[in-house]
Amino acid sequence: MGLELYLDLMSQPCRAVYIFAKKNGIPFQLRTVELLKGQHYTDSFGQVNPLRKVPALKDGDFTLAESVAILLYLSRKYKTPDHWYPQDLQARARVDEYLSWQHTTLRSCCSRAMWQKMLFPVFLGQPVPPEILAATLAELDRCLQLLEDKFLRNQAFLTGSHISVADLVAITELMHPVSAGCQVFECRPKLAAWRQRVESAVGEDLFQEAHAVILKAKDIPPADPALKEKLRQSLKGLLQ
Amino acid sequence: MGLELYLDLMSQPCRAVYIFAKKNGIPFQLRTVELLKGQHYTDSFGQVNPLRKVPALKDGDFTLAESVAILLYLSRKYKTPDHWYPQDLQARARVDEYLSWQHTTLRSCCSRAMWQKMLFPVFLGQPVPPEILAATLAELDRCLQLLEDKFLRNQAFLTGSHISVADLVAITELMHPVSAGCQVFECRPKLAAWRQRVESAVGEDLFQEAHAVILKAKDIPPADPALKEKLRQSLKGLLQ
Repeated sequence: MGLELYLDLMSQPCRAVYIFAKKNGIPFQLRTVELLKGQHYTDSFGQVNPLRKVPALKDGDFTLAESVAILLYLSRKYKTPDHWYPQDLQARARVDEYLSWQHTTLRSCCSRAMWQKMLFPVFLGQPVPPEILAATLAELDRCLQLLEDKFLRNQAFLTGSHISVADLVAITELMHPVSAGCQVFECRPKLAAWRQRVESAVGEDLFQEAHAVILKAKDIPPADPALKEKLRQSLKGLLQ
Repeated sequence: MGLELYLDLMSQPCRAVYIFAKKNGIPFQLRTVELLKGQHYTDSFGQVNPLRKVPALKDGDFTLAESVAILLYLSRKYKTPDHWYPQDLQARARVDEYLSWQHTTLRSCCSRAMWQKMLFPVFLGQPVPPEILAATLAELDRCLQLLEDKFLRNQAFLTGSHISVADLVAITELMHPVSAGCQVFECRPKLAAWRQRVESAVGEDLFQEAHAVILKAKDIPPADPALKEKLRQSLKGLLQ
């Protein structure tokens, strides 16, 4: 069995891995794990990733969790073009810096913004206190400002003049609040221009394909009561 | 000017960077940034790291934030022994997986456990609601279980049979709740044995030197009122 990627394109890091693999012509079997149906709780998926998160990778007997580790594994194994994860010492450090920074900043608030604005009220039927949503959106705004000021600055891409895995990790994250109707790019011309460059570098078709599911998430019918209860428990961290 | 490392050994990622640099004989100028005195808010430190966090690295004109990025930069620039960040594809992926995983798990709850159990009540004079501390300690317990079950398993070190940067990042994290009197190793013989192996591999003297400040943190006198107010604002995320 060759490379298997366990993904749900509802998840932002899954989209980053999907785009990276497709764009680089990496052959893989897609194993879909539908989070909103609770498929990450199944025994068979627990064998692949005991952390019960997607993305997950299986390559023969080797299994790997964590999107950043998966992206770097794929870049090394398939020797993808240098710009994705440059050999140059300082350029690579810039990519590592972004990949570390985003975990507790954009990663956290883009998830919360999308869930609080869209999936909690619509899919789970659980209203979100306005002050919690307001605090999340304020934090998102601060993170976007740091993304511009500290990382993008006056460069074409986040870590320099060429697209890297940092850009994929960032754009897939930002499309999460976009899907819920948050104003991410409207008053941020530099970020909007960067988004266009990333879309062009990835290719419009692949970008749209990867984001089709999340951009239609507002039309998902409400969950059934049993699943609602299960998901509410595991998702309560997103209500802060 | 050669390599400069901006550190405060009160901070767990700073201790990881410090131990790594010292253990590998990497020459550097130590620039101390005392967080509990608010020195990360100074203009001069803002020039080095606009994110206002330690550790930060300055190497000539090049500045770098984020401890994981700094550790990998040092390992590459100074060609440290392979076991710290192995060339082997799968072994390196295991290290990357841990380094990604810890950001939103151990990193978060070890900080909160230490602050809630020790520095909020003693240094800031701010009592912590018992239910908040209990939830943090329960989360810490879950994270420690995952650390054992998913990462350590029956290996000598977290990602295999030799010490890697993952072990440094983990042990410096766990010493944070230990400093506040949390029971981290007492009922976990596998983790306790791993801690001994890490201490031996690092060297007892260096390990103690790096942890001297945090292990005496319970004796720090209360902050003055102005600093209390400033720190309370920036630390309120640790009270969840």
